[in-house]
Amino acid sequence: MTSSIKYSLDERDIPRHWYNIVADLPSPPPPVLHPGTRQPIGPDDLAPIFPLAVIEQEVSQAREIEIPGPVRDVYRQWRPTPLYRARRLEQSLDTPARIYYKYEGTSPAGSHKPNTAIPQAFYNREEGVRRIATETGAGQWGSALAIAGAFFGVEVEVFMVKVSFQQKPYRRTFMESFGARCIASPSELTESGRTILREHPDSSGSLGIAISEAVERAVQRDDTKYALGSVLNHVLLHQTVIGQEALRQFEHADDYPDVVVGCTGGGSNFGGIAFPFLGARLRGGPATEFVAIEPAACPTLTKGLYAYDFGDTAHLTPLVKMHTLGSTFVPPGFHAGGLRYHGMAPLISHITQLGYIRPRAYQQLTCFEAGLQFARAEGILPAPEANHAVRGAIDEAIKCREEGISRCILFNLCGHGHFDMQAYRDYLDGRLVDQEYDESEIAMALAGLPSVA
Amino acid sequence: MTSSIKYSLDERDIPRHWYNIVADLPSPPPPVLHPGTRQPIGPDDLAPIFPLAVIEQEVSQAREIEIPGPVRDVYRQWRPTPLYRARRLEQSLDTPARIYYKYEGTSPAGSHKPNTAIPQAFYNREEGVRRIATETGAGQWGSALAIAGAFFGVEVEVFMVKVSFQQKPYRRTFMESFGARCIASPSELTESGRTILREHPDSSGSLGIAISEAVERAVQRDDTKYALGSVLNHVLLHQTVIGQEALRQFEHADDYPDVVVGCTGGGSNFGGIAFPFLGARLRGGPATEFVAIEPAACPTLTKGLYAYDFGDTAHLTPLVKMHTLGSTFVPPGFHAGGLRYHGMAPLISHITQLGYIRPRAYQQLTCFEAGLQFARAEGILPAPEANHAVRGAIDEAIKCREEGISRCILFNLCGHGHFDMQAYRDYLDGRLVDQEYDESEIAMALAGLPSVA
Repeated sequence: MTSSIKYSLDERDIPRHWYNIVADLPSPPPPVLHPGTRQPIGPDDLAPIFPLAVIEQEVSQAREIEIPGPVRDVYRQWRPTPLYRARRLEQSLDTPARIYYKYEGTSPAGSHKPNTAIPQAFYNREEGVRRIATETGAGQWGSALAIAGAFFGVEVEVFMVKVSFQQKPYRRTFMESFGARCIASPSELTESGRTILREHPDSSGSLGIAISEAVERAVQRDDTKYALGSVLNHVLLHQTVIGQEALRQFEHADDYPDVVVGCTGGGSNFGGIAFPFLGARLRGGPATEFVAIEPAACPTLTKGLYAYDFGDTAHLTPLVKMHTLGSTFVPPGFHAGGLRYHGMAPLISHITQLGYIRPRAYQQLTCFEAGLQFARAEGILPAPEANHAVRGAIDEAIKCREEGISRCILFNLCGHGHFDMQAYRDYLDGRLVDQEYDESEIAMALAGLPSVA
Repeated sequence: MTSSIKYSLDERDIPRHWYNIVADLPSPPPPVLHPGTRQPIGPDDLAPIFPLAVIEQEVSQAREIEIPGPVRDVYRQWRPTPLYRARRLEQSLDTPARIYYKYEGTSPAGSHKPNTAIPQAFYNREEGVRRIATETGAGQWGSALAIAGAFFGVEVEVFMVKVSFQQKPYRRTFMESFGARCIASPSELTESGRTILREHPDSSGSLGIAISEAVERAVQRDDTKYALGSVLNHVLLHQTVIGQEALRQFEHADDYPDVVVGCTGGGSNFGGIAFPFLGARLRGGPATEFVAIEPAACPTLTKGLYAYDFGDTAHLTPLVKMHTLGSTFVPPGFHAGGLRYHGMAPLISHITQLGYIRPRAYQQLTCFEAGLQFARAEGILPAPEANHAVRGAIDEAIKCREEGISRCILFNLCGHGHFDMQAYRDYLDGRLVDQEYDESEIAMALAGLPSVA
């Protein structure tokens, strides 16, 4: 029997710095604009919602930013995460490709999200913040912040997209087990939520709406700040521990990826695995390719406009230039809530514009099929979001088989599917269907994009 | 902020042998008897239901039994598992005790069960078995065997105790995702199941009944064998990788346990963590104490008789001498399905009789309370079964605080609670209640014990 291979690292190999791709890009990403003046914002504009240390990281040009000791101490609970050579999957695909995956599901929340939840909770605690408000889609981010809040003694309030709140009641229980409060969004707790509910009483919610609610809570209360689980520069920065560890692990494997595959919702797990390899390429290293997989029902990178837009539905956030389907677009309720976002990380969008990222969109059924094929070969049941990356990697490997070449494929298995069993139940029972977005809704949302000189 | 400490091991430190406690005991455990003749059974009697390699291990007197290469290769996917010093928990308890836990939840099934599922599937495959029938309580064992079956290309058929099947529908989905078949027990598929259903159409099932059904399927079909997830000597043997790794990790920690705590249902996770330390004691090492925590609603070790009894309800198994509440006793449906067994591993019972194990029984509410305290301090939400060990360890630590002494406490965190969220929901909502067994039911079950000369 063929066995898959694990590449472990020593605790000493946990990165001491986060890697900031901005330092190596041929051109900087466009500035973030103030929603009122449409002029570039400064740190003071963000101070009501973020701690200062986070704001500094958001605009930093430095290549390396030191990871604080207490954050590294918590990382050590589950980091370094393993890199696997998926030999059994290769065999089941009969492919000459070498498939590797970095597995982030060993974290206490079961996904990559604690990589940024821990430092965000730490910086808030350091600056005396009592409570953090946030949004969550599938619940992975909210779960991670709930654990981080328990570690650092900060209260956590999570607005969870209603369709996921209903599909995954156990995510709420998980967050509450760690002492967090979890609210279905849109809610009656905020003006943003009430406005949506007046117009759409049956709204299934969206990340854009949940962000509005959480930001509103932070702005309204002096003891409360806001935390975002993806999209922003500092979040992608924190996730680079993934790719940095993988770089070291490939030294042990005596191999190097020809292509890196990740799923993209807000862009943070993709940035986390891809940026360190892209940085190496930009500094003269091997010409690794980067493939971003997104859901066909919310095809931000493949069908969106690259334009300035709001990060949220109620337009409380600054304006960022990104691939967007329009901030008022509410994606259909497919089973990968972490990927249901109208926008994309500005850094991912910018780098896609620069030509370094190849985006691709998949429907959910083919992703679940890939996820089960992976599970039966490798023993790990992926989260539906991660199934998109699995599908992308398998398709790259099938292409290798068809072309008779052996390429090295790395993908990020960003989380396990233990809280997504209803989706697998539906898939196994043949009740899961592909979801189509409404073209006219996207057109309408894009027509409402803010005008920027 | 205090941080907990992780003691990792290198892959090279995965044990090469399983440790057989029988070789070091001052007296051997009583023989297993044939249910018909009441005479000691031989390998031929077990051949219809187990592969030969497993039967040899069941009766082996050798101290060390080599772990086959292909089994070690699969172990490497998640082993060695981490040992943690629970510094944050110690701080939250304000105790001078040093609390350590070995965490088995990093396995693909989320518990210690793959430690024996992998070799059992391997040995069956080696001997040409096409299908394995088994029982499962909470679903941890069934999940582990489903994954192991997928790895080695053996079909898996799981009889799941009906109360757990209903409480935890996602466990069934998990097993089916790996290609296994999962049936609520008692079922109409077997004579054992039909007999129970005729007398008790609303039976919530029990491990004893599910074992009867699985054994019956194995006996009836030539291409099918049976696998047990706990109780038997070979299962406890396979689990000793846990304690052997912990011994090495304590060398790195420069510490050594004064007391080892584990939960006991069938006895395998307890044996796995305890036997290597007990072996060291029996060979002249430190006088470590051993505390077995069982559910007060199914108090096998603390209230059962030490007597010959059947392992199953329909009396298809051999007779083993163990602590038992009577094989026809059906425990109340509390939320730790893995601990709902009328009997106990004969080795654990024998060693308890020898005076090396201190058993203690807890109700479930106090265990859930301990589990949440642990989660908020350490970031991991335990399975309800594991909460019993957490409760036991916390009580040992509180005793240290009261007595003003620092003892070293090790407990086995045998699995995570991701599939047990309904139980936590009920606990958080105040709907969980302690369960009492019916004294007269146990008396009746014990009155029916088989007579052995």
